[in-house]
Amino acid sequence: MKFITLMTDFGENDGFTGVMKGVIWGIAPDAQVGDITHAIGAQDVLQGAIVLSRSAPFFPPGTIHVAVVDPGVGTQRRPIAARLGEHFFVGPDNGLCSLLLEAVERRGEAVQVVHLDRPEFWRAEISNVFHGRDIFAPVAAHLANGASLEQVGTPVSDVRRLQLPPVTATGDGWRGGIILVDYFGNLVTNLGREQLGDSLGWRVRLRGVDVPGMVRTFGERPPGTLVALIGEADDLELAVVNGSAAKRLGAQVGDLVEVFPLE
Amino acid sequence: MKFITLMTDFGENDGFTGVMKGVIWGIAPDAQVGDITHAIGAQDVLQGAIVLSRSAPFFPPGTIHVAVVDPGVGTQRRPIAARLGEHFFVGPDNGLCSLLLEAVERRGEAVQVVHLDRPEFWRAEISNVFHGRDIFAPVAAHLANGASLEQVGTPVSDVRRLQLPPVTATGDGWRGGIILVDYFGNLVTNLGREQLGDSLGWRVRLRGVDVPGMVRTFGERPPGTLVALIGEADDLELAVVNGSAAKRLGAQVGDLVEVFPLE
Amino acid sequence: MKFITLMTDFGENDGFTGVMKGVIWGIAPDAQVGDITHAIGAQDVLQGAIVLSRSAPFFPPGTIHVAVVDPGVGTQRRPIAARLGEHFFVGPDNGLCSLLLEAVERRGEAVQVVHLDRPEFWRAEISNVFHGRDIFAPVAAHLANGASLEQVGTPVSDVRRLQLPPVTATGDGWRGGIILVDYFGNLVTNLGREQLGDSLGWRVRLRGVDVPGMVRTFGERPPGTLVALIGEADDLELAVVNGSAAKRLGAQVGDLVEVFPLE
Repeated sequence: MKFITLMTDFGENDGFTGVMKGVIWGIAPDAQVGDITHAIGAQDVLQGAIVLSRSAPFFPPGTIHVAVVDPGVGTQRRPIAARLGEHFFVGPDNGLCSLLLEAVERRGEAVQVVHLDRPEFWRAEISNVFHGRDIFAPVAAHLANGASLEQVGTPVSDVRRLQLPPVTATGDGWRGGIILVDYFGNLVTNLGREQLGDSLGWRVRLRGVDVPGMVRTFGERPPGTLVALIGEADDLELAVVNGSAAKRLGAQVGDLVEVFPLE
Repeated sequence: MKFITLMTDFGENDGFTGVMKGVIWGIAPDAQVGDITHAIGAQDVLQGAIVLSRSAPFFPPGTIHVAVVDPGVGTQRRPIAARLGEHFFVGPDNGLCSLLLEAVERRGEAVQVVHLDRPEFWRAEISNVFHGRDIFAPVAAHLANGASLEQVGTPVSDVRRLQLPPVTATGDGWRGGIILVDYFGNLVTNLGREQLGDSLGWRVRLRGVDVPGMVRTFGERPPGTLVALIGEADDLELAVVNGSAAKRLGAQVGDLVEVFPLE
Repeated sequence: MKFITLMTDFGENDGFTGVMKGVIWGIAPDAQVGDITHAIGAQDVLQGAIVLSRSAPFFPPGTIHVAVVDPGVGTQRRPIAARLGEHFFVGPDNGLCSLLLEAVERRGEAVQVVHLDRPEFWRAEISNVFHGRDIFAPVAAHLANGASLEQVGTPVSDVRRLQLPPVTATGDGWRGGIILVDYFGNLVTNLGREQLGDSLGWRVRLRGVDVPGMVRTFGERPPGTLVALIGEADDLELAVVNGSAAKRLGAQVGDLVEVFPLE
């Protein structure tokens, strides 16, 4: 069984994501297609890159991830496909795969990238505005059918990268930033277990508010409490139990976060 | 073919539900995974229990329903799996499966519940905040692969139950409550064909408004009309034709509903 | 592999669309079911017809499209199934399939329509308000299993049709209308390549605003620019780069659009 995932900023209203499945099934009828999400913010490549890097690794080895957040569709930005360790990426070369790529590089796994320049693997007619349907979906389906990266494109060595807010050591603490606000209003930071270890003895500061000490899970505090905890991706998150930390603090992506050891 | 459904309050934004599919497919590549909904109100276990009990029976016998509305994730609340008649449930023991369970008990069908306490059927690393990914999805996949309930957990006899608003006879009528407001703004009650039979000769009262007599379907009245009818789950519903009864009446879950025979 | 798509105005909140998949899998366990969208505006048959006609052709030949936008459910409107060229439609006879049908007729492909009047292909109990679950899903599953149109219904020759805003020639230009506002706020018209050819030398006028000349894709102009372009379905669209033309212009479905040759 070959697995293909779809992640886009297309929303669910217009049938665009259904159409991509239709194109895939027309080429690779046995492919199992699963949605990661289609609610990435419009043109928000950074959010897409973060969600993709947090989701893709949980799929089976060999899964092909088609990701389309593509403000440059139809311009000179390249369409690419890549092998990133045990997973495949198909989408625009605008940084969307770069956080997944960097995690793979940190683990020393194989990386291979091609520029999709072989129209024989695309739909016959190419729209200027919907490469998800006309290039990325068919290429993914051909990969699922056994085509190699070398067949569908020309090897390239440079890939567009994104910049996350810096993580810096501050004496005995750390400074980072909010990189994602999730559906529940939890604030996800780019600090995490890597900096904080397993200790709960940290004070977390965000927008002038101090959270003294961390918890292991939401249910340890009454509804409405602002808590700091290690989230499902091993990252430091701020949350309001049964509520929204984003609303409570008026916080957003890019906000500075600082942690200090509890005295 | 083995069928697994997913129902959560995770929303669609963050890839969490896609990740659960990825974990399932990594263990049970042939499982067919279908979403019931991921728009249960955040932490609204009662709404989840109602939607699950109204949806699960329409899936094929043997379907495994993974349901995660789980404010107590990571605390002492138990993870469970259950055979409920012809269907299986995997999720937290917080009442989420209890309405489905009670329907099965009323029909006298077999019930079997286990406490999920065998980490060899879980992901290797368990987050404190995402048991949907780390415990429930993998257990469901192992059940799909043929593991028995006895293999994945220890039998228990008590399951947490939820309380619906009471249904009471009032002389020649009935009193109940709104238990669900659906996507169209239709108001679903816990009264239904069981109390009202096939007669349309009922007056329905809600928030001081009287609906004199019931209809069989929406199209019998002009757009904008407030109507009472038996809905798709054999329950009494109030609806506005091509509109929202919830908005029209300012009604919400828990509101009292009364029915009387038409004179 | 047999493919079935679902398109409805049910939203994703209540499990209704999951239930339709459950019913299908109970009859046709091997069917691959993909969603087109469930966010058609409530009772908006015209929007449903447009989205269906733009999405269905991208699925493999033989795909069965179940579409339910059905304000007349349970009344005298007929349930139908149809062969429309290489695709199948199952749903209410209220115009929902008529744009797809007319495209097939223009290409001179085969059309065959039956009135679904054989309850042996339905669920045993039929709700008055949810034919998607009780009639359309089971009939689609039986078609996927190899039943013929003649088996599931009685041939009919008349199908309900919808009226799009007229397209008229105006000397050297054209007049049409907005037929769809997509998720991004792009304004889709019923003018397109058929009238405008491949030229970008057109002035587009909508709600008193003039767009002088067209672009090939969004990225040719800075964010915030109002542009006119040929969209993914070969139709004339107005868009704001990385923004919403619908919000910018206060435009909506039915608004008049005019194009003139650039001097």
